[in-house]
Amino acid sequence: MNPPAARPSHLSLAPAAPVRPDWIALAQGVADALAPDAAERDRLGASPKRELALLREAGLLELLFSPEHGGGGGSFTDALLAVRVIGRADASIAQLLAYHYLHLTNALWRASPEQAAALARASVAGRWFWGGASNPRDPESRLAPVEDGYRLTGRKTFASNAALADRITLRAQLGDGFAVLVVPGDREGVTHGNDWDAFGQRLSESGTITFADVKVGRDEILGDPAAPPPPRTSLVVPFHQLLIVNFYIGIAEGALAEANRYIREVSRPWQASGVEKASLDPYILEHYGNLDVELRASTALADVAGLRFEAATALGNAITPDERNVAAAAIYAAKVHSSRTALEVTSRIFELMGARATAGHYGYDRFWRNIRTHTLHDPVVYKSREVGNYALNGVITPTPLYS
Amino acid sequence: MNPPAARPSHLSLAPAAPVRPDWIALAQGVADALAPDAAERDRLGASPKRELALLREAGLLELLFSPEHGGGGGSFTDALLAVRVIGRADASIAQLLAYHYLHLTNALWRASPEQAAALARASVAGRWFWGGASNPRDPESRLAPVEDGYRLTGRKTFASNAALADRITLRAQLGDGFAVLVVPGDREGVTHGNDWDAFGQRLSESGTITFADVKVGRDEILGDPAAPPPPRTSLVVPFHQLLIVNFYIGIAEGALAEANRYIREVSRPWQASGVEKASLDPYILEHYGNLDVELRASTALADVAGLRFEAATALGNAITPDERNVAAAAIYAAKVHSSRTALEVTSRIFELMGARATAGHYGYDRFWRNIRTHTLHDPVVYKSREVGNYALNGVITPTPLYS
Amino acid sequence: MNPPAARPSHLSLAPAAPVRPDWIALAQGVADALAPDAAERDRLGASPKRELALLREAGLLELLFSPEHGGGGGSFTDALLAVRVIGRADASIAQLLAYHYLHLTNALWRASPEQAAALARASVAGRWFWGGASNPRDPESRLAPVEDGYRLTGRKTFASNAALADRITLRAQLGDGFAVLVVPGDREGVTHGNDWDAFGQRLSESGTITFADVKVGRDEILGDPAAPPPPRTSLVVPFHQLLIVNFYIGIAEGALAEANRYIREVSRPWQASGVEKASLDPYILEHYGNLDVELRASTALADVAGLRFEAATALGNAITPDERNVAAAAIYAAKVHSSRTALEVTSRIFELMGARATAGHYGYDRFWRNIRTHTLHDPVVYKSREVGNYALNGVITPTPLYS
Amino acid sequence: MNPPAARPSHLSLAPAAPVRPDWIALAQGVADALAPDAAERDRLGASPKRELALLREAGLLELLFSPEHGGGGGSFTDALLAVRVIGRADASIAQLLAYHYLHLTNALWRASPEQAAALARASVAGRWFWGGASNPRDPESRLAPVEDGYRLTGRKTFASNAALADRITLRAQLGDGFAVLVVPGDREGVTHGNDWDAFGQRLSESGTITFADVKVGRDEILGDPAAPPPPRTSLVVPFHQLLIVNFYIGIAEGALAEANRYIREVSRPWQASGVEKASLDPYILEHYGNLDVELRASTALADVAGLRFEAATALGNAITPDERNVAAAAIYAAKVHSSRTALEVTSRIFELMGARATAGHYGYDRFWRNIRTHTLHDPVVYKSREVGNYALNGVITPTPLYS
Repeated sequence: MNPPAARPSHLSLAPAAPVRPDWIALAQGVADALAPDAAERDRLGASPKRELALLREAGLLELLFSPEHGGGGGSFTDALLAVRVIGRADASIAQLLAYHYLHLTNALWRASPEQAAALARASVAGRWFWGGASNPRDPESRLAPVEDGYRLTGRKTFASNAALADRITLRAQLGDGFAVLVVPGDREGVTHGNDWDAFGQRLSESGTITFADVKVGRDEILGDPAAPPPPRTSLVVPFHQLLIVNFYIGIAEGALAEANRYIREVSRPWQASGVEKASLDPYILEHYGNLDVELRASTALADVAGLRFEAATALGNAITPDERNVAAAAIYAAKVHSSRTALEVTSRIFELMGARATAGHYGYDRFWRNIRTHTLHDPVVYKSREVGNYALNGVITPTPLYS
Repeated sequence: MNPPAARPSHLSLAPAAPVRPDWIALAQGVADALAPDAAERDRLGASPKRELALLREAGLLELLFSPEHGGGGGSFTDALLAVRVIGRADASIAQLLAYHYLHLTNALWRASPEQAAALARASVAGRWFWGGASNPRDPESRLAPVEDGYRLTGRKTFASNAALADRITLRAQLGDGFAVLVVPGDREGVTHGNDWDAFGQRLSESGTITFADVKVGRDEILGDPAAPPPPRTSLVVPFHQLLIVNFYIGIAEGALAEANRYIREVSRPWQASGVEKASLDPYILEHYGNLDVELRASTALADVAGLRFEAATALGNAITPDERNVAAAAIYAAKVHSSRTALEVTSRIFELMGARATAGHYGYDRFWRNIRTHTLHDPVVYKSREVGNYALNGVITPTPLYS
Repeated sequence: MNPPAARPSHLSLAPAAPVRPDWIALAQGVADALAPDAAERDRLGASPKRELALLREAGLLELLFSPEHGGGGGSFTDALLAVRVIGRADASIAQLLAYHYLHLTNALWRASPEQAAALARASVAGRWFWGGASNPRDPESRLAPVEDGYRLTGRKTFASNAALADRITLRAQLGDGFAVLVVPGDREGVTHGNDWDAFGQRLSESGTITFADVKVGRDEILGDPAAPPPPRTSLVVPFHQLLIVNFYIGIAEGALAEANRYIREVSRPWQASGVEKASLDPYILEHYGNLDVELRASTALADVAGLRFEAATALGNAITPDERNVAAAAIYAAKVHSSRTALEVTSRIFELMGARATAGHYGYDRFWRNIRTHTLHDPVVYKSREVGNYALNGVITPTPLYS
Repeated sequence: MNPPAARPSHLSLAPAAPVRPDWIALAQGVADALAPDAAERDRLGASPKRELALLREAGLLELLFSPEHGGGGGSFTDALLAVRVIGRADASIAQLLAYHYLHLTNALWRASPEQAAALARASVAGRWFWGGASNPRDPESRLAPVEDGYRLTGRKTFASNAALADRITLRAQLGDGFAVLVVPGDREGVTHGNDWDAFGQRLSESGTITFADVKVGRDEILGDPAAPPPPRTSLVVPFHQLLIVNFYIGIAEGALAEANRYIREVSRPWQASGVEKASLDPYILEHYGNLDVELRASTALADVAGLRFEAATALGNAITPDERNVAAAAIYAAKVHSSRTALEVTSRIFELMGARATAGHYGYDRFWRNIRTHTLHDPVVYKSREVGNYALNGVITPTPLYS
């Protein structure tokens, strides 16, 4: 899975947000460890405990935390690129890391300053892995006040990371409103279905979670649930979508790099091609070129979206809805584009590699299975709609947890 | 010459060969038997012995043989539609039937009249299943003359149907030329790798075959290898491609029918859609409509190609190269179109069904895996080239066994 | 319900209405007369009086009328193919003929048997050219009863054919309902804006019409406006759309035929192509092939739609809404496909011909300008929606004069 | 032609290359002056003398020259963005400016340091407008040594800017090699065909030029024709292509901005849409969104290509072929993408605006005519090939003046 020497790294496409080489190098180290048996692990579909350990040992779980709390002090761009790099080798593990960054960011942005500092310190110290359980397509979980705090009841399908998580962030109904809370993953009453069964992202641990009368302490409710959410939490959904964009790009880059190597080293020229090597076939050159163009475009768009996101987060809680939407529209445009590109790349590479690339032991269909599965997270056509809505009407339709 | 394609004949929809409903009904019966556990059988990937028995019991193996030899007397159109109908339920089994028709037709067209009659009678009597071993991407097999006939030596990957075949048709080098011969599948020295391992068409039994000093009788050589091949054998490759077209359409029809049912019965409307049923979502209507349009177009084109093929075969050995190319170009156009449509349909239906349709137990990814695997049989871009070549230059590049 | 679209009938290519070669030959004669100066006439944009005379002299205006009324006795298929053939040479004139067939058919289907017979005889005798003025995007015209009949008041933009028409068919409000009527084009009070100014279909005479207190006799109201419209008038909109499909195909065929000739006779090979003739460039072969495939598919789909329409009209006023929708869905699918194909062909041919094909004197941009203009008649995406609606819900949304 | 307030400027997408606001403002001023009668001027197709005067008066002709020679000191990025901004309003005038920058850069990079300084000073002082006459698709022009210098003979079609140019840069055969020279546009023996007649870029003055025994002084030969060309001249073709990319993006931005305004202010909602404004139609939102996504992607890719080009030019004559190809591949990818996007945008906006937007007085077809004409400059498919060639083989095929 080494991208050919001739290929400039896509990482250098984010010039304004200087990439700290250490994070990328650390992510690359994990990717290198994951790549050799990615196909085999996809087949087995076991719980990704070893893989999570690699993320943890590399220090990637602490990337986003502030140095004052012992964290890595990485930027959001660092986090996004780490997700992308790992996505090239193993999309499931990139998803784990992506949702880790999402859920902890959501928690810290919701929390009071004191809560946030405490959570950050504890997370770094305990090397926590974060998960979530807020899928809005299921009925809301509910918090009921009791003498010593609350009791949490609910059931969510698609609880990302939760089965392996040290801490789970979730949203629950509390009276007429909502609270965001954090509970330990092993709290009594929390059970995991371990029923993730999709044909893609098979190691992503996104199965069902059930909360059966789970104790929740007052200090586990983040911020003041009676107050309006802090303005910058309006960036949580865009951040979620931008993390997704980056592992989609990782998937496409990984697939195209594999095809590149295969075409050069394994493919035989077509009998009517009149050339001696598959890599000289005029149609392979053309269509590889077209895929490369699309991927360069998706990557450039993702990098622009990353810049917009960094600019928006820099505004902190002073951000206005319009400023938020500038970033959101850029991100949703990148989502539309990267979804389409990754689907295209992962399906069309076979036309460049030839029939023998379908051999089961290569496992190359996993690229398409992975992207096909995750691109259904929310309908991409509704993201096209919001990009259009923003351009024509200056607004984005509020859709809880999706736009 | 006059460019033939830019002004297609007004007569493109001249009377079709009348469809004898029994063949379709028989094929539908097999399809109905295959459908319920198609996903499960795809997972297991066992040798399709039971499935072949269904084809045999339905009488579909005899469809193409003449009634005077005890055969079914079906038309090529009947055969093509039978393949299509079964392809809706199980693409691997449709492939088995397709290659059966291909290899026996190749044999009968090569054979002398006496050989053809004898083979037809024996095939009907023995309810033979036919396979082949002529993949031109491998080195040629070789026939060496010996005292009592010939000895056959060779090795072919991708030997369609051969592992289960009663008779195997193949091409082998004989002196400076080539012979086409037929041998029993269980002849001593014939061994099967049983190593078909692609991620799609998993039951299609297209593994490696080896011929180790296999005895071949003089009467097993078809026709006169020293003579030029009978003119109508120039239709073997188009027939092959047209059979392929029909199971591609079957795959697409099967996938879209499944999506149709799922959208109406299972899918939930998207939260921002403002409608009560997924089947009323404006974007699902639009994009389902677009897939339906494409599939209708592919089907219409396949049917036109079928008419052209029937017209060409009706000319028998009086067919000219130009008449052959009229049919071939129509078929290759249908191949390009159905390949693209089936890839598109099998990947995009998920966007209409939603995330839960990726659940492993549905096995809906098999549609894409099947079509993605088989559409690599020969590069579709070279079929586009030949359609263009025919339209611009009035010729089709001769590519052994592919165009 | 049975999903209707995912399993198209095997009988889709049942015997076509036999094509009487004379009509095609007659249309071809007109096309041959129109072709040489089509680019020049597009530039001038004059009223197509001479061109209409060619249609009239060829007898094409009488094609659809019954022999018992002195008409040509042509089938709807004949009419559709005549439109297609003329569309290859001049899309504006094909549109004139198409709307002629539309408006007279609408009139005859609405009329009482006696009215229909009288109109047919008079039309044949007078060699009438028919137009219409019912664009539903404008306010309705109104009929007011007066002593000796009615007075008609209204204004319509986009009144097809009307400026040159001997008879104009239109719909007008009468009391609480609607009447369909026919008036002579030169009736006092009828004025034409002669303001058709689009960048395409420049000779199509589709400008504004104004009715200022126009006398309308009782016998000019067709049928009984108080009664429900005869069932087969539900086929008027599909017929309209199918006529459109056929001149779209004509446009695409004409453009591709011109490109074919140009590539072979004029284009120079690209300097990096390594071939001696442009028609041997691998990319030109590929992309010409792809356009040819698309056009073959559109044509096959249009022909299937034509068969469905003939079958539906054969049911006369016994037709049920479901039977109507079988034809309508086939036609709308053909509309979606031919719109896209014609837009693609007319834009992409330049990539095959090369830069010099943009020279103004060729006028090759008229193909795109023509199809781009007319494909906006009604939004094609709403036709995709109806194809999807029919496939998923078994219904087609009633949209006055559009679906 | 003001982009709607809701739309973030695409200019801000080039963060690492700080945009000097004055150049953009100056270009915007010219664009504002050009926009109101762009459609009318396209119709008239007169020689763009007034328009050139606007460029000259704004100082844009001096942008690239160094302050030490009295020039504007703008960066290549400034030049590219100026071309883009003007392209939004008038693509022909953007082309004039683009080729001006191209031809003067080619001259200065070829020239000896002394020649370059002298040319720069003279160009600034004389406010020269530069043209060229090197189209490699025609036979080479020839330089013959004579007593007092040389005589130049030749004929080139497509001589960009030359008819209005103060100085013309061209390549001519000299002995066994080639020389690059600069001659005044009004030198005796230079005649212009004034025969540019394409259906697009109608004001771009790209007609035929003839050199009939034209006197050329020794000092008008740039650099030493016997020496290999300076390494950075390998960036001339990429610069040419990048300038093209930027006016393609300008065309697409201009077209989409116009559509945006029209949809909001003029379009009527479709009768079956169920919404009150066209800008709320779900399909208009979706498809506008898709076009916006594509344009954002093309723009991001163009900006990345611009960064690569700036980095490459910063290497001066120390640049290696590999370093050159990093930039070239990025630029050719942007070329492929922007060509496709601009063709798509300029054709599909009509589906969003509706039928009345084809009215001749709007002249909206000019967007498509302009991009369709110029995108044939060199076959875009060969740029796809080179992107693929670079990715697979690490090389770019040398094609004189095209890659």
